[in-house]
Amino acid sequence: MVVREKVLDLVVSCFKRHGAKGLDTPAFELKELLTEKYGEDSGLIYDLKDQGGELLSLRYDLTVPFARYLAMNKVKKMKRYHVGKVWRRESPTMVQGRYREFCQCDFDIAGQFDSMIPDAECLKIMCEILSGLQLGDFLIKVNDRRIVDGMFAVCGVPESKFRAIGSSIDKLDKMSWKDVRHEMVAKKGLAPEVADQIGDYVQCHGGVTLVEQMFQDPRLSQNKRALEGLEDLKLLFEYLTLFGISEKISFDLSLVRGLDYYTGVIYEAILLQTPAQAGEEPLSVGSVAAGGRYDGLVGMFDPKGHNVPCVGLSIGVERIFSIVEQRMKTSGEKVRTTETQVFVATPQNNFLQERLKLIAELWDAGIKAEMLYKNNPKLLTQLHYCENMGIPLVVIIGEQELKEGVIKLRSVASREEVAIKHENLVAEIRKRLSES
Amino acid sequence: MVVREKVLDLVVSCFKRHGAKGLDTPAFELKELLTEKYGEDSGLIYDLKDQGGELLSLRYDLTVPFARYLAMNKVKKMKRYHVGKVWRRESPTMVQGRYREFCQCDFDIAGQFDSMIPDAECLKIMCEILSGLQLGDFLIKVNDRRIVDGMFAVCGVPESKFRAIGSSIDKLDKMSWKDVRHEMVAKKGLAPEVADQIGDYVQCHGGVTLVEQMFQDPRLSQNKRALEGLEDLKLLFEYLTLFGISEKISFDLSLVRGLDYYTGVIYEAILLQTPAQAGEEPLSVGSVAAGGRYDGLVGMFDPKGHNVPCVGLSIGVERIFSIVEQRMKTSGEKVRTTETQVFVATPQNNFLQERLKLIAELWDAGIKAEMLYKNNPKLLTQLHYCENMGIPLVVIIGEQELKEGVIKLRSVASREEVAIKHENLVAEIRKRLSES
Repeated sequence: MVVREKVLDLVVSCFKRHGAKGLDTPAFELKELLTEKYGEDSGLIYDLKDQGGELLSLRYDLTVPFARYLAMNKVKKMKRYHVGKVWRRESPTMVQGRYREFCQCDFDIAGQFDSMIPDAECLKIMCEILSGLQLGDFLIKVNDRRIVDGMFAVCGVPESKFRAIGSSIDKLDKMSWKDVRHEMVAKKGLAPEVADQIGDYVQCHGGVTLVEQMFQDPRLSQNKRALEGLEDLKLLFEYLTLFGISEKISFDLSLVRGLDYYTGVIYEAILLQTPAQAGEEPLSVGSVAAGGRYDGLVGMFDPKGHNVPCVGLSIGVERIFSIVEQRMKTSGEKVRTTETQVFVATPQNNFLQERLKLIAELWDAGIKAEMLYKNNPKLLTQLHYCENMGIPLVVIIGEQELKEGVIKLRSVASREEVAIKHENLVAEIRKRLSES
Repeated sequence: MVVREKVLDLVVSCFKRHGAKGLDTPAFELKELLTEKYGEDSGLIYDLKDQGGELLSLRYDLTVPFARYLAMNKVKKMKRYHVGKVWRRESPTMVQGRYREFCQCDFDIAGQFDSMIPDAECLKIMCEILSGLQLGDFLIKVNDRRIVDGMFAVCGVPESKFRAIGSSIDKLDKMSWKDVRHEMVAKKGLAPEVADQIGDYVQCHGGVTLVEQMFQDPRLSQNKRALEGLEDLKLLFEYLTLFGISEKISFDLSLVRGLDYYTGVIYEAILLQTPAQAGEEPLSVGSVAAGGRYDGLVGMFDPKGHNVPCVGLSIGVERIFSIVEQRMKTSGEKVRTTETQVFVATPQNNFLQERLKLIAELWDAGIKAEMLYKNNPKLLTQLHYCENMGIPLVVIIGEQELKEGVIKLRSVASREEVAIKHENLVAEIRKRLSES
């Protein structure tokens, strides 16, 4: 939980740095609105029982609810972030189906703007977050749906097979080209020569020079939509260079991204495997952030079909949580689960009343304080508690202190104790906390 | 959303001040585990469709999932907070049933401790939060389930009618005694003389003196469980006095609280109606926080029935959100929805590249910055945007500035502009922001 909080804080503060406002949309959507938005994945949507009333499903991601919000409220322009849970069934075919609950962190820019400026900002945000989290080296693959479709068209893939072939291509980060080719030909009935032509393209990746090279490609350059995509990517790389992040971005023709709603630029960030250090288990790499442009989704929710162009990104925080946790486990770093600053202790019996008065004083001064819920705890038990919980300061009150109008202030780390006049206690604690 | 964020920040920081750690439990529970925990309310639970696998329901509150978590993980001691969504059906009988999604903020202390110390801390927390939110004067009603049951027993309510009569009594904050009495007698079949005896009790409220008085009550003092409750309340008031909050607490024999799982002290905070000020609509008052002790709930989830005593509270943040929002609407106070500190502008065409480089510099320095996503925006449009959005600073770059190696820094409020050397810009912005 502490790790989660730190990661989410960093993500949200980056979203705010880019001028986004927070927006929360409900966890449920009308079932009929959700189906058909996710392509092959829609079997993973979790439905609610019909208990009278509308048929509802749990949200599968934060993008579709955002698009619906824009359409319903006729919002034409908005920059928002949303940190929330989404729910997916593990598999639609499993009998013992279980659901999974994810946290997602999304940032989206909706509105009609000059080409590629918001898109470049989305990539900048992904870079800032991944650098900020210190997850090691990363790379962001970029492509464009129009280039994917253009590539399929010029290679001779029948349009009815675009999505199925796309989802095979998407597996290239886990499977070899040979296996993917086999799947396309044997299982999805693609002609072998068509598969080979695709193979020539999807094995290409590089920087802006690859974009230039594709402009010269005799077949791709004949496809109008692919050309539009290439034009946009060229402009995008220009902006990424100005942002100082172009070396983190790779134009990768094998990036397809399964979701049906993307219409333009698409991207996916992966962590680059670093050689396992001594005693460290190799981390499984994979996508940690992704997104793209979806200019048609809002119109699907608008009664008159009015569109609002959108581009956005989603940070895969669950995967990031596990990576950070695993790192900390390996390094043996201990994280405090509470933020308690001061513990109120007594060496004597029958001092509950004094402890209660004292701790209320600290709470009222905004100091994070704890005590044991016992009438007569042993001093050693109380000090051990502080050591176990990492509480830095202890205030001790006993008969002697009460008589002299002082409180003992003890540093848990150094075990030093000083007597402080009761009326100066809060000020002294604040001073110590601000110094540490 | 901004109001929500501020309220939640205050609530969570209070929970942390009291040494709680954050804990997140899933949104779903096994259906069979949820039913029977909520008494009359269980018809409001929202079930998931059976798509294969376990039958699940959405969590109705955060208490039952916490109890289940303790039991499943054999945790014997824990102080945790949880901010999360819960879901309820509006009404089980309505055909056009709709669901409601709430945010709840819970704090709970689990473990075997000396009597009433954690309970008093829960009331202290409620006071700190309600004072901190500046919602006006408030009062916390306190009672004990054992006193309620004892009162019913000595008045001659049949045990099978305890819950039904309890839920009538609970309506005393909205209905007159006359109407409640009618409901008990006419609808729930209670003997009129029994109702009248209850009436004598439930119209009593007061401080610790009322507790003392009830010890002397010839009938109530004969009931063993009621006596235990009174003993605990006496001790509780002693601690509340040490915490300096006893004048906010009222022992109120009409407080019953519907949920089945409470076993000891129960409490509910209400806002006291302040006379409507000029132009201000009177606020509807009501419960804004509540809780109590539930010593038997964890055992219901434990295979061997092992119990972990618990006490906790829930802040009714949704109601608080509306109150704060209404106050702000009435006072005309405007809240910024974003935190953007600096806007990057240009008076000239063809300056997109310079703006992109400059804004990346600000982002990389951790400054919250925005610009318009247009190649050639008008300067006036850009300055208007800052005024509308409440952005305090503008940096302006044009041909002149570029030539001289300076950037113009403009204060939106005073409209003053100064030219600053490019290399000193970030430092100057930081200085200005820290001063404001």
